[in-house]
Amino acid sequence: MDAAAVAWEAGKPLVIEEVEVSPPQKDEVRVKILFTSLCHTDVYFWEAKGQTPVFPRILGHEAGGIVESVGEGVTDLKPGDHVLPVFTGECKECPHCLSEESNMCDLLRINTDRGVMLHDGKARFSIDGKPIYHFLGTSTFSEYTVVHIGCLAKISPEAPLDKVCIMSCGFSTGFGATVNVAKPKKGHTVAIFGLGAVGLAAAEGARVSGASRIIGVDLVSSRFEQAKKFGVTEFVNPKDHNRPVQEVIVEMTNGGVDRSVECTGNIQAMISAFECVHDGWGVAVLVGVPSKDDAFKTHPVNFLNERTLKGTFFGNYKPRTDLPSVVERYMNKEIELEKFITHEVSFNDINKAFEYMLKGVSLRCIIRMDA
Amino acid sequence: MDAAAVAWEAGKPLVIEEVEVSPPQKDEVRVKILFTSLCHTDVYFWEAKGQTPVFPRILGHEAGGIVESVGEGVTDLKPGDHVLPVFTGECKECPHCLSEESNMCDLLRINTDRGVMLHDGKARFSIDGKPIYHFLGTSTFSEYTVVHIGCLAKISPEAPLDKVCIMSCGFSTGFGATVNVAKPKKGHTVAIFGLGAVGLAAAEGARVSGASRIIGVDLVSSRFEQAKKFGVTEFVNPKDHNRPVQEVIVEMTNGGVDRSVECTGNIQAMISAFECVHDGWGVAVLVGVPSKDDAFKTHPVNFLNERTLKGTFFGNYKPRTDLPSVVERYMNKEIELEKFITHEVSFNDINKAFEYMLKGVSLRCIIRMDA
Ligand SMILES: NC(=O)c1ccc[n+]([C@@H]2O[C@H](COP(=O)([O-])OP(=O)(O)OC[C@H]3O[C@@H](n4cnc5c(N)ncnc54)[C@H](O)[C@@H]3O)[C@@H](O)[C@H]2O)c1
Ligand SMILES: NC(=O)c1ccc[n+]([C@@H]2O[C@H](COP(=O)([O-])OP(=O)(O)OC[C@H]3O[C@@H](n4cnc5c(N)ncnc54)[C@H](O)[C@@H]3O)[C@@H](O)[C@H]2O)c1
Ligand SMILES: [Zn+2]
Ligand SMILES: [Zn+2]
Ligand SMILES: [Zn+2]
Ligand SMILES: [Zn+2]
Repeated sequence: MDAAAVAWEAGKPLVIEEVEVSPPQKDEVRVKILFTSLCHTDVYFWEAKGQTPVFPRILGHEAGGIVESVGEGVTDLKPGDHVLPVFTGECKECPHCLSEESNMCDLLRINTDRGVMLHDGKARFSIDGKPIYHFLGTSTFSEYTVVHIGCLAKISPEAPLDKVCIMSCGFSTGFGATVNVAKPKKGHTVAIFGLGAVGLAAAEGARVSGASRIIGVDLVSSRFEQAKKFGVTEFVNPKDHNRPVQEVIVEMTNGGVDRSVECTGNIQAMISAFECVHDGWGVAVLVGVPSKDDAFKTHPVNFLNERTLKGTFFGNYKPRTDLPSVVERYMNKEIELEKFITHEVSFNDINKAFEYMLKGVSLRCIIRMDA
Repeated sequence: MDAAAVAWEAGKPLVIEEVEVSPPQKDEVRVKILFTSLCHTDVYFWEAKGQTPVFPRILGHEAGGIVESVGEGVTDLKPGDHVLPVFTGECKECPHCLSEESNMCDLLRINTDRGVMLHDGKARFSIDGKPIYHFLGTSTFSEYTVVHIGCLAKISPEAPLDKVCIMSCGFSTGFGATVNVAKPKKGHTVAIFGLGAVGLAAAEGARVSGASRIIGVDLVSSRFEQAKKFGVTEFVNPKDHNRPVQEVIVEMTNGGVDRSVECTGNIQAMISAFECVHDGWGVAVLVGVPSKDDAFKTHPVNFLNERTLKGTFFGNYKPRTDLPSVVERYMNKEIELEKFITHEVSFNDINKAFEYMLKGVSLRCIIRMDA
């Protein structure tokens, strides 16, 4: 019996329970989680507003752990390996995994409604024989969890799991959006819409790429002070202007930014992020998850004038193939992670991590499983 | 005094007149036109519906000719050089010309309303001292014309001007949209929306790139027979289906095409061209010129699922830098141009070229200046 934080009902504090974690089945791995952190997506599915409610459930998808045992057919991992679980997988066999350009695996692409394992449609967690459902195939708010082999990135055993755990979702999403998709060149001007954890990771990508100006855009001016630590050089609050923010940015940059990355989920920010890039070569990248009824709307001449618009999912990283080298870039001191980690709590205090995020005071709160 | 076809009024037949063509000024070149062809853009500005009417005017922008004399400061061209005039120029000094990615020169970008030369704001054409206005800086419906050095591509004197003249606009626009912007890989499936001259040139780009399937989409089924000569393998007429054509194409291709190129100018076709590309790696390219009030509208999740949308202008070719090598590809028999040339008339019969295009029977009609 192992401890797990169970979400029994939408919006109610998690309860640490003794949970049965059954052995890994075919293509599955049982992982001992050492550190996990809280991401907005956990909060959305805990609140379950406008989402399919799946309860009781074990949330959590940003984490670092060690392989405890492996199921039938698993040859790529063995007990003792250090891993990052990832909410989107890589089967290495489908057209997406075989394409150089996509990371949207047909088999293991994110599925927010499924609470069971693919192999047999059952949960590996139970209390008194009753199933407790999975979340994003990761369920890292548990001492032990069972994950499909395709959703585990094997990383260097030297990497400190209490830091690199944040690379398992938020950091890689924003950082990859910049370095893999927007691809700014040295000296470029980059606009970042939304200065939450994802946007600041996108700014970190711009800094590492040698951007000369990084313009942060947010509706909350208090975000600006913190963003300075992330290399953001200028700030624009759309509320301070009585014309569309894209016009303000085009003016500031003599025609538009070279690259922009939208990390808000707000449809107006998506349109502004596109319309503020320079004609001829500007590239805008959408990262934020929009609402069901949103419509992206712009004049087609904005495209004809040689602007590019793309979207990305998990920063276009293939988790198994690419994450190990992202971890290496941290080990080589190219990437700074410490500045993202603003809080730390023991597993028993996991509900405090939710409070910090809801109050907007934390970027990332690390949850230590051993404490 | 030289002969030129003057458009005196919107929609009225051109009149061959004796015109004074003054010598080239600073950075200008006087060119003897040997062959010119008719493009839709000439027809739009001749009809001048919804366009600023600029009359009297000498139309024409697809042509091949020989340098007759050069003005002050011109060192790149000398009398006798073979050239293609281009409606969009390359000054080689502005941020766009210095960028590897853009061809939207700040100085010489297309300007459909200007009827005079940049140097002194005057026309080089006159009859009895009264100015006859320029069109797109090219005005090739004339035995002699004066063009800014930045709008002339110097090409091999071996290239047959009666064929390669069509590379000065329509062919390069469609072909470049595919090979420079959509960039299909060998074996890719490509959808082409609109099977006019531009769309068929885009199809030629797909053929040359080794596309395995080329799906032609047009509202006029009679376009399909001709398109077979251009390597188009399958046809879809949106009118034959009672659901959006993008759904039909996604079904035909098991998830979407790898690349699509829109060459219609119709906003619905633009949206379909985007929504029919495969998630994960699909790229859609807009070429058609939309109406002023059109709005491109789609759900932002279509971007998030890793689709890319771009637009292009003159196939992203920088005219002076890139056109010579496009001509070489024709000389090396890589590109087929003959199939685009469906008609030929003498200069005196230039109004017949307009009739063929208005009736929709011609792709390209070559106008021989010497005949
Ligand atoms: N594509 C992916 O793979 C992926 C993965 C993880 C998260 N996300 C999405 O990324 C987005 C950002 O995540 P986060 O955790 O950093 O969120 P966050 O809520 O911490 O940050 C969002 C920021 O955007 C700002 N904002 C909102 N509307 C704005 C507007 N119109 N203009 C400017 N700023 C605006 C907010 O003030 C806030 O500071 C979310 O939509 C999230 O769902 C996407
Ligand atoms: N971006 C540039 O640099 C550039 C340069 C030249 C031309 N153009 C534009 O390219 C477009 C094509 O030029 P063209 O000379 O080949 O025109 P065209 O009129 O000969 O061909 C357009 C074709 O599109 C078809 N069509 C129209 N609406 C459609 C729809 N909803 N779905 C499918 N097919 C549809 C028509 O039936 C026609 O066959 C025009 O809009 C033109 O203005 C752009
Ligand atoms: Zn896969
Ligand atoms: Zn997350
Ligand atoms: Zn043209
Ligand atoms: Zn220029």
